[in-house]
Amino acid sequence: MKSNFDFKSLTSDQTGRLDTLYEMIETEASQFLGYPCSCEFDYSELYRFLKYPINNVGDPFDTNHYHLNSHEFEQEVINSFIRFTHGDIENIWGYVTNGGTEGNLYGIYLARELFPTGMVYYSSSSHYSIPKILRIAHANSIMIKSQPNGEIDYTDLEDTINFHRDVPPIIFANIGTTMTGAIDNIDRIKQILKDKMVHEYYIHVDAALGGMIIPFLKNQPSFGFDAGIDSLAISGHKMIGSPIPCGIALAKKAHVNRITKMIEYVGARDTTVSGSRNGLTPLFLWYAIQTKGMDGFRKMIKYCFDMSDYAIQELQNIDIDAWRNENSITVVFPKQKKRIMEKWQMATQNDIAHIIIMPHVKKEQIDLMINDLK
Amino acid sequence: MKSNFDFKSLTSDQTGRLDTLYEMIETEASQFLGYPCSCEFDYSELYRFLKYPINNVGDPFDTNHYHLNSHEFEQEVINSFIRFTHGDIENIWGYVTNGGTEGNLYGIYLARELFPTGMVYYSSSSHYSIPKILRIAHANSIMIKSQPNGEIDYTDLEDTINFHRDVPPIIFANIGTTMTGAIDNIDRIKQILKDKMVHEYYIHVDAALGGMIIPFLKNQPSFGFDAGIDSLAISGHKMIGSPIPCGIALAKKAHVNRITKMIEYVGARDTTVSGSRNGLTPLFLWYAIQTKGMDGFRKMIKYCFDMSDYAIQELQNIDIDAWRNENSITVVFPKQKKRIMEKWQMATQNDIAHIIIMPHVKKEQIDLMINDLK
Repeated sequence: MKSNFDFKSLTSDQTGRLDTLYEMIETEASQFLGYPCSCEFDYSELYRFLKYPINNVGDPFDTNHYHLNSHEFEQEVINSFIRFTHGDIENIWGYVTNGGTEGNLYGIYLARELFPTGMVYYSSSSHYSIPKILRIAHANSIMIKSQPNGEIDYTDLEDTINFHRDVPPIIFANIGTTMTGAIDNIDRIKQILKDKMVHEYYIHVDAALGGMIIPFLKNQPSFGFDAGIDSLAISGHKMIGSPIPCGIALAKKAHVNRITKMIEYVGARDTTVSGSRNGLTPLFLWYAIQTKGMDGFRKMIKYCFDMSDYAIQELQNIDIDAWRNENSITVVFPKQKKRIMEKWQMATQNDIAHIIIMPHVKKEQIDLMINDLK
Repeated sequence: MKSNFDFKSLTSDQTGRLDTLYEMIETEASQFLGYPCSCEFDYSELYRFLKYPINNVGDPFDTNHYHLNSHEFEQEVINSFIRFTHGDIENIWGYVTNGGTEGNLYGIYLARELFPTGMVYYSSSSHYSIPKILRIAHANSIMIKSQPNGEIDYTDLEDTINFHRDVPPIIFANIGTTMTGAIDNIDRIKQILKDKMVHEYYIHVDAALGGMIIPFLKNQPSFGFDAGIDSLAISGHKMIGSPIPCGIALAKKAHVNRITKMIEYVGARDTTVSGSRNGLTPLFLWYAIQTKGMDGFRKMIKYCFDMSDYAIQELQNIDIDAWRNENSITVVFPKQKKRIMEKWQMATQNDIAHIIIMPHVKKEQIDLMINDLK
């Protein structure tokens, strides 16, 4: 459609500022080792969709009065992720979120609606947003100790649950912690609940990064719906890669139905947190699933593990005590000089730093970083 | 950077499906009268930024370990919106959200943190997401009656506040309701609070659409920080236009400081709801502000009012009882035949329907719609 107006163009100063930003981002992307966001994507075939105000408002599985949407593609994305997480399409539902925080808030919200007096247990290695989410949702919670590798301390969890057997436990489990990629053992947590005669409970899984690694491994630790979890959040901008942060929230339909309300205004159920949701990230995820496929994901993840092991070897060769958890591509080592950590955008917490070997990381970058550390 | 992998291309079937989606959206956009999302934008100059995983994680006014961000541009956008809403940069803070829901959740969250026992009062004409937001935030709330034009019923508000004078009121006011574009009178609400000797209160304003209309009018009703409000949410994908839903959350710094926590992992304060936030929508909004400017916004809004009045005239000419609120571009009329409402994507609620004359709407489209209604 032709515009109704005749707006100005950017001045050359303004264009120059955008150019400067672009060049800065280009440079920084070549030293981007610390955060779990892949740069391995190219969605230029989809840019034409940026011409319209596409909006996947409401439930992706409903028809809708707002016709500019990509719900049909979102449905396929969700069904793929239900398969990745060993759920069945009959009983599991989901939607594409604006990122990990929304998916975790969604799980906590569902859990708190099911068990208003429930107590949320989450380990001290959980993502920094979790205390904020719990505060927003006004949920009762206790932070549980972590083991040195980042996994939840099962003894502390057991003792604490034992102390609060009058309220249903809501377990917030990590499938890949932020700093060390540690995986909480769902089977062991369920055994604790069983031993304590706790039959009413809820398990939410934060699988931000791990949820796109484990499904592509031969020997998978328990993490999905077949392990008896109730809801799960996976990031879309991490392993898959996206210029717009996004994620996938999945949950048992039985829980979602409790919060469902039909909205006449849009002709759809208001089952999501965001309501208005962008229609682009579902297209990006769909595109990635089509072009990368199970085989491509497997190759990518094997590459990440190989490169992680290479980085650990090279770090150890220069006497830096690097390690990783099993099934994790996060390489952990003691904090280094501030200048070097800043250059390579390494993330730090307390005494440790990490790099995360995402699919875009090249051997040469690891070598350059090692050179800097020498 | 060159890719580390050799992924597949889309099959011709898959490309065909995208083409079909694109054509459907193109067609539907030409009959897009019912929702307040402008199609008047062209951000193609910015598409190159979609090559990288830009992420405006955390507080836009902090430096950050995650260097791929557009925080500098976001700051300018926020400062523009602080001016639009008559705030001062010293005392007001904000960030670019994923849409109206996040901005309203943010306001309710701040209010509930300030007054944990507070009672939220919101009119029955508030956006359908408000009961959901209140449920997520576990806030005490009472729905107040609306007047026939959609404005809050001040008598019901006064009586209800009078009944609950033991708890601080949290007023959720609408500057442009969803169905009829009605504007709650902030001065009158404050007078009620004063009359009832209520000195501790919080006012959040949902100015999704109205927040980008009123600042550009000669005679502005009270709606901003100069009127004594505490926080406000405006949509970015409505009047400004954006292919990705977005919004602006603004609040008094004093309230935001209460929930602030420094996060070592990203080197920034975790002052937002989303945490990871896309860096594109701040660039879109910045681009729109630069190229449209105050003058362009004024022209756009004058055009919308002129066209609204034209639509009302034409509807009345065919005996359809159409009307609009003062300072609103939402044209309200009784429900019409389902087929026609669907074709033009009209929104409906109870007995009424509306079209919203956004900047992309053309006279010819109104004429075609009138023809269908005849």
